[in-house]
Amino acid sequence: MNDNSAASGLAAGPWQNVTVVGAGVIGASWAALFLAKGMTVTISDPASEVEKQVHAQLDEAVPALRALGLPTDGLDRDLRFEADLERAVASADVVQENGPERLDVKRDLFSRIERAAPADALLLSSTSGIRATDIAEALRQPGRLVIGHPFNPPYLVPLVEVVGGEQTDPAAVRRAVDFYTALGKKPRVLRKEVPGFVANRLQSALFREAINLVVQGVVTEEELDEIVTSSIGLRWAVAGPFRSFHLGGGPGGLPAFLQHFGPALETRWRDLGTPRLDEPTVKLLSAQARFGASFEELQSARDRAQLKVMRALDE
Amino acid sequence: MNDNSAASGLAAGPWQNVTVVGAGVIGASWAALFLAKGMTVTISDPASEVEKQVHAQLDEAVPALRALGLPTDGLDRDLRFEADLERAVASADVVQENGPERLDVKRDLFSRIERAAPADALLLSSTSGIRATDIAEALRQPGRLVIGHPFNPPYLVPLVEVVGGEQTDPAAVRRAVDFYTALGKKPRVLRKEVPGFVANRLQSALFREAINLVVQGVVTEEELDEIVTSSIGLRWAVAGPFRSFHLGGGPGGLPAFLQHFGPALETRWRDLGTPRLDEPTVKLLSAQARFGASFEELQSARDRAQLKVMRALDE
Repeated sequence: MNDNSAASGLAAGPWQNVTVVGAGVIGASWAALFLAKGMTVTISDPASEVEKQVHAQLDEAVPALRALGLPTDGLDRDLRFEADLERAVASADVVQENGPERLDVKRDLFSRIERAAPADALLLSSTSGIRATDIAEALRQPGRLVIGHPFNPPYLVPLVEVVGGEQTDPAAVRRAVDFYTALGKKPRVLRKEVPGFVANRLQSALFREAINLVVQGVVTEEELDEIVTSSIGLRWAVAGPFRSFHLGGGPGGLPAFLQHFGPALETRWRDLGTPRLDEPTVKLLSAQARFGASFEELQSARDRAQLKVMRALDE
Repeated sequence: MNDNSAASGLAAGPWQNVTVVGAGVIGASWAALFLAKGMTVTISDPASEVEKQVHAQLDEAVPALRALGLPTDGLDRDLRFEADLERAVASADVVQENGPERLDVKRDLFSRIERAAPADALLLSSTSGIRATDIAEALRQPGRLVIGHPFNPPYLVPLVEVVGGEQTDPAAVRRAVDFYTALGKKPRVLRKEVPGFVANRLQSALFREAINLVVQGVVTEEELDEIVTSSIGLRWAVAGPFRSFHLGGGPGGLPAFLQHFGPALETRWRDLGTPRLDEPTVKLLSAQARFGASFEELQSARDRAQLKVMRALDE
């Protein structure tokens, strides 16, 4: 047990040594959460500025971690950097990989990781779209690899999509769920691999129509955002789409809803837009992207608001 | 000024007499809010059980109205029923129509309403999909008609989509915005008519992919709902899709996001499902629609949670 976890009273249990491979925004945010949970974190990233960037990300995470009730004094006490991948994972209980979203890179990373890491280390990838089955083809023990796809920022958004590949050992999936649960996340296991997993697919479906409505001039980006936050966003924070439409069906529930509104829904689907992200569209969307505040201000306002919502729902 | 508004301290201002045409779930819920805001409400609905049903709906609305800080004692003091449409609208300041979603019915209702209502009465339709332009073809003064499309339940969800038709007088749109603002709603004016307006189009786009993922066996309905409430729902309650992706782009904002992720987004769009609501699909979706509690329990849990979120965001 290290000093930090003793001080914070948090028991990292079997997950004491975590190696974060790739310390971009996602990797560094994972590191912030692991550290606040009393784990010892080794970051492996060949980028020259990595230490500076990670410390900046840790500073950014502090208000949210504090609001979540986690200790943040001396957050980097149990943080070390080790550019050499093999040395970085040599004594890892868990490896959370956050490298570039390229299959060849992921394959190379994990084939090196599985040789250098302890035989029982849990091997996790944050990939937002690459299948475990495809990465695991490069592995001698494909059963060890599990996708643990977080939402940005991982210390704030509860969801982690947990997905095994065709050869993933079910026990590895269960261990991944245990790990994320110990972190206070909400891991959700998908029953099948599908490109982009669930949340990003849903998000991209809505965003396609959002772009269509802006391109058609029905609303501006800001107007559309206001419409979402004052209706479906508010609703989906407390009840997902199926439960919402189940209630929309009255006492007859979803079956009644589908009976009454199914045909209208199919008509609506046929009428949805299929915009392309060609140059004029990107130009139009980019030109409207003025949200009246700096990136830092907008981010911190969003994080504060989201913490309020999470606290309200926890009560 | 009537007793109720005097007692509640609410000034209905120029909107004292409101006629609710059609008292299904939406109409009766509107009535509950109008009454709580100190307005005098006349309900016109030929259904034989209308009085009983409306009183049941009022009872259901009371906890939410109270939580919103509105007075609910003697809520039905200024409520009357008048099945005869012409008599019901004869002294209306505002008419909020909630009849069946059929163009011929809407046309018939509004052509009778415009003849019988005072010349300066504000004429509003709750339609969720029919264009004002199409309804107004039946009117002598098409400039008067404005769509005021609420989300269910109207006393709880802030959004009202306000849409004028091709011939709608801009002053009527402004009056509709004033009316809904006075009610404490968040009216959002659309710049163009489009079938289904904005929120329902976005909702149906996401729901299509949600159905696809359940049909493909990637997740169950309940699992998908949990994924939404712990990620994109939570996010969209505080920042809409454009603002979210603006922040997802880092300091470069939405332009950087579109540059980096645009191609991947287009690939994702091509991969989204296009399920049909045929009999096997409806059967499968209906069979999964077990949410472990009665309609009333689920509804009341949703409303309580939503009020918590709204209060948290108001602070």
